[in-house]
Amino acid sequence: MAGNGKRARVVFQPSGRRGEFPIGTPLLDAARSLGVYVESVCGGRGICGRCQVSVSEGRFAKEKIDSAADHLGPATEAELRYATLRDLARDRRLSCQATIEGDLVVDVPVDAQTNRQVVRKRAENVDVTPDSAITLVTARVAEPDMETPLGDADRLRRALAAAADLPRLALDPPLLAGMQKLLREANWQVTAAIWQDDDAPPRVVALWPGEKQHVYGLAVDIGSTTIAAHLCDLQSGRTVTSAGTSNPQIRFGEDLMSRVSYIQMNPEKLPDLVRTVREAVNALIAKLVADIGAQRSDVLDAVIVGNPIMHHLFLGIDPTELGGAPFALAVSEAVHTTATDLGLELNPGARAYLLPCIAGHVGADAAAATLSVRPFDSDAMTLLVDIGTNAEIVLGDRHRLLAASSPTGPAFEGAEISCGQRAAPGAIERIRIDPETLEPRYKVIGLDQWSDDPEFAEVRDQVGVTGLCGSGIIEAVAELYLAGVVTSDGLIDGALAEKSPRIVQKGRTFAYVIADDDVELTIRQTDIRAIQLAKAALYAGVKLLLDKLGEPEIQRIRLAGAFGSYIDTKYAMVLGLIPDCDLSEVTSVGNAAGTGARLALLSRVQRRRIEQVVRDIEKIETALEPRFQEHFVNAMAFPNKRDPFPKLRAAVALPEQKTAEPQAGPDGDRRRRRRRG
Amino acid sequence: MAGNGKRARVVFQPSGRRGEFPIGTPLLDAARSLGVYVESVCGGRGICGRCQVSVSEGRFAKEKIDSAADHLGPATEAELRYATLRDLARDRRLSCQATIEGDLVVDVPVDAQTNRQVVRKRAENVDVTPDSAITLVTARVAEPDMETPLGDADRLRRALAAAADLPRLALDPPLLAGMQKLLREANWQVTAAIWQDDDAPPRVVALWPGEKQHVYGLAVDIGSTTIAAHLCDLQSGRTVTSAGTSNPQIRFGEDLMSRVSYIQMNPEKLPDLVRTVREAVNALIAKLVADIGAQRSDVLDAVIVGNPIMHHLFLGIDPTELGGAPFALAVSEAVHTTATDLGLELNPGARAYLLPCIAGHVGADAAAATLSVRPFDSDAMTLLVDIGTNAEIVLGDRHRLLAASSPTGPAFEGAEISCGQRAAPGAIERIRIDPETLEPRYKVIGLDQWSDDPEFAEVRDQVGVTGLCGSGIIEAVAELYLAGVVTSDGLIDGALAEKSPRIVQKGRTFAYVIADDDVELTIRQTDIRAIQLAKAALYAGVKLLLDKLGEPEIQRIRLAGAFGSYIDTKYAMVLGLIPDCDLSEVTSVGNAAGTGARLALLSRVQRRRIEQVVRDIEKIETALEPRFQEHFVNAMAFPNKRDPFPKLRAAVALPEQKTAEPQAGPDGDRRRRRRRG
Repeated sequence: MAGNGKRARVVFQPSGRRGEFPIGTPLLDAARSLGVYVESVCGGRGICGRCQVSVSEGRFAKEKIDSAADHLGPATEAELRYATLRDLARDRRLSCQATIEGDLVVDVPVDAQTNRQVVRKRAENVDVTPDSAITLVTARVAEPDMETPLGDADRLRRALAAAADLPRLALDPPLLAGMQKLLREANWQVTAAIWQDDDAPPRVVALWPGEKQHVYGLAVDIGSTTIAAHLCDLQSGRTVTSAGTSNPQIRFGEDLMSRVSYIQMNPEKLPDLVRTVREAVNALIAKLVADIGAQRSDVLDAVIVGNPIMHHLFLGIDPTELGGAPFALAVSEAVHTTATDLGLELNPGARAYLLPCIAGHVGADAAAATLSVRPFDSDAMTLLVDIGTNAEIVLGDRHRLLAASSPTGPAFEGAEISCGQRAAPGAIERIRIDPETLEPRYKVIGLDQWSDDPEFAEVRDQVGVTGLCGSGIIEAVAELYLAGVVTSDGLIDGALAEKSPRIVQKGRTFAYVIADDDVELTIRQTDIRAIQLAKAALYAGVKLLLDKLGEPEIQRIRLAGAFGSYIDTKYAMVLGLIPDCDLSEVTSVGNAAGTGARLALLSRVQRRRIEQVVRDIEKIETALEPRFQEHFVNAMAFPNKRDPFPKLRAAVALPEQKTAEPQAGPDGDRRRRRRRG
Repeated sequence: MAGNGKRARVVFQPSGRRGEFPIGTPLLDAARSLGVYVESVCGGRGICGRCQVSVSEGRFAKEKIDSAADHLGPATEAELRYATLRDLARDRRLSCQATIEGDLVVDVPVDAQTNRQVVRKRAENVDVTPDSAITLVTARVAEPDMETPLGDADRLRRALAAAADLPRLALDPPLLAGMQKLLREANWQVTAAIWQDDDAPPRVVALWPGEKQHVYGLAVDIGSTTIAAHLCDLQSGRTVTSAGTSNPQIRFGEDLMSRVSYIQMNPEKLPDLVRTVREAVNALIAKLVADIGAQRSDVLDAVIVGNPIMHHLFLGIDPTELGGAPFALAVSEAVHTTATDLGLELNPGARAYLLPCIAGHVGADAAAATLSVRPFDSDAMTLLVDIGTNAEIVLGDRHRLLAASSPTGPAFEGAEISCGQRAAPGAIERIRIDPETLEPRYKVIGLDQWSDDPEFAEVRDQVGVTGLCGSGIIEAVAELYLAGVVTSDGLIDGALAEKSPRIVQKGRTFAYVIADDDVELTIRQTDIRAIQLAKAALYAGVKLLLDKLGEPEIQRIRLAGAFGSYIDTKYAMVLGLIPDCDLSEVTSVGNAAGTGARLALLSRVQRRRIEQVVRDIEKIETALEPRFQEHFVNAMAFPNKRDPFPKLRAAVALPEQKTAEPQAGPDGDRRRRRRRG
């Protein structure tokens, strides 16, 4: 084995970045320390599979490296599980799992960063034929002729129009300044980027001497906490690199509404909020182009998606109107603008496109997710849910599509939960509760072993057990319900305190103790209440849309966004976050908004499609619907007071309907519940 | 009579500017000292008639002024002459002639500043139906509705599209930022400026609350020495105010080629040349909008014309390619751009349009002059000449149109002439030479009296007699030729030294002494030679075009530009600057380029027309034409060695063909000339 004993040399391709690392360093860590972007959305747990890399074997003279696949440590349990459950190609490794054991040349495949989405897209057949708004055309321009004194720009346009078979072609005036020198230095052979979208006449927006093979487009999903950006080759349609960062606007307010409040209180700070997010995107652009050895001027188009407030702020629009009824969007249809107008540091001729917003609470990100999931092309009644502080809900099929949002609040993100925390090492992400003993076993982020593993005690202190992340909370509440600790009304059954020391009284209610080592981790009555409120809001929103459609059977459920990617769909259904459906038809679609942004970046057909879909989509304002409250009250129960969830019951043994004192609902409800109980 | 003895109060309307002035101050001087723009192109000589004003009579309580028409001094000789020759309305005075004799409220009529052009336009029937690229549309926008969550911008676009009967309407994205506030403050009633030109889809480019009545457009003619700008009401088509300034690029080079050389030597200074001319235009804009009490944001469109080098520099393009063969224009077709891209401080949504350039030496100014004179609509064979350092020549009729330029050099502008000077007080502008006595009488700029007037000696020292301006030189040489002092070959006949002391020997040649008081003012052989070279170049260019057209008879001649406005067309023809033509059909058209710019500003039909005309016009590169030299040699003679000028001879008694030793031309020419002599 090569290597120099304690440290090994690693070169990442195609970026060519290199460094020396201690033996045993996970490849992902090494990549990150060199600024090589490898996507990973599961926090290095070997779940998401996006961090795949391969080893280039052999002797690399230039690099002075003997690289071999076995210079990586053996596959971990997580990696073997991933390889079994998904399809990990033979030469691929998960860089979060594989450790450096010798000198290596590592290839970061351009598709690896979006591997899961590629798989998903293939599965759902949303291959895109590249048809971007930017076309590259190479042409030989006629030299100047005193007898026919047509300007250089005019001869250029004629040559390009002929080469591109366009009847007419405009030219961005700022190109005129440098054009004469460029034409002469290029000996009259140039490549132009021609932009055409919608009903705009085609325009030359950039010029290069000679032949130019690749230009790129940027797809950005601006979330309230994170920003994800992808660089795509506009000709091949391939995603060549991706990067993410946190949204620095967070310092003006943790969540959306607090940012709107901040602007209402400090209207003069609006430019700061706008600048700060644009700067973050510019930093991502710098990272992306450096990753592939390209330049900013190689990026000719950008697609931006985000929720309405992020969308407005990115456009420089004061989002105050979105802070209160009637939640008036400044603009709902797609926006065609220039990168310069958005402060994006790309090619000076680069264009930008923002997908349409569906409604005041259902943004361009929801439109992009819809474009990615394509319910409008499906015969299957599809529910698409993106869960955040607001749940954005799209329901329908090729015949009819509805959209709404429900104010779920931040409980699903671990906020308002007594021992909630963000998904980070030490957070419980999975939990099982034995229905007999009521004892828990759990798994924390950062450790492979479950808590009942004999080795757990040894490794435990590496990360500690610090709290419950969103998926951990969902599983904990669902397992408590399945174990009979929590009634379908959401009450912790105090009578069980006699059976298990894990049930303890806290004031006038009871709590369930998961752990009591570093810190006491308990599920309290208030935590369950917070989950009930959040999931009832989500479910009530779905029900409203189902009402409008005549209560059809839901055939597919797609969960989008970070939360949707991590929760176990079974537990989500056990709690009644989502309606009854064949569990095999409930899947996560990851960052569907980012995928939709890329589709719009790569294809004008997709832009026109989503513009029309958003025009046609029926927007339901949940606050205006009289039945919302009724659905909400019913949805407080697990899984639901009214809806029977037969498909779920066929797959999961739900506890007998056991009720404690009801905490909400009119008398009639209480009577019915007792009768059913 | 009112007034306070030594000083009088004067208020200029509509600007409302006021001041006190010594009795006897010319109104034009008073206006200028207050920054009230009154056009005057003849240097205050009562010739151009553009400085017309009227007196508002009566008691003006607010102004504390008793204003009466007779508070102006009596009409001067120049004013009476103007009133007789042109049509000066009863209530109008020439402000360069009228002196302040008491308190006054003076009205500067909006049409006065372009009076002459209005007259001319009426005469040549180029009334324009306003059809500008900017339309104002007022609409009531539907308020936001949660059930139909269309964005404010989308409802705005729908309301405007309905009001303007447009199927589709885009909106400039930068408008989004302020739109929501504006809509609410305007209570949903707004006026939009909609821009549409060529094949661009219509766009909302500006918004105002409520109703907006007037928006303006800017027409600018950028000359190498002066910049003229007009503000036009885009709805009515009226020119509401005008202003001019010198081109500050002059500090980088007096003439065009010296500026190109400067950039070639100092390429890093290009941005300075660009900025300096744009700043000058911005200063004019400030003056124009202040004049009418408007704001920069009321100006929505701009049309810019200039010769190719001025045109390129204004666009920020390095004009180096225009400095040498093949004189490649960066762009020849019309340029559609934005005011912002040109650094113009207008409404942020304002557009800009540059007329097409015809060829490397025949610019957008020539295109504009062509649009103004409209030979392409005429059955009359028309010659349009704009004389500067280059003479731009357009010849043809509705069937066929040709264009060329000839390098006349700066002689016509008084440069390269021993006693030449710019048109300024003290310059001889007119001269007559008695064919018998050979004694001259002349008139200088700034004095009414001719030099043979008994009063002349008294007033002479007010301005002195300092040199000859362009028109003075033309008249002097022509009168010397008519008086037989100069032969048709351009030689001063030394034999006449015996007859008159005004013919004196200077080295190996002779000179004619006009005056010998303050300074000796003489026409030397070299001066005549310079005029011959310049006029021969011009005439040879015209002849080339005539050749191409089969030597048709010229039915109309139009002289454009400052020089063309001041020279006496008879003398121009006597010297053979211009070809033979009925003298009544030879007229000056003033700043035809500025008029053409206004036509393009006010009418898209005119834009499309001149674009097509310029595409179709046949461009002749004089340097490539083998017959140029032959025509040039023939044109060295007065009026011409070959062409007989029968119409001129019918109107003016030309001297018998008297030759001295020829100075140029092949032997064959000499023989023929002798045979004819």
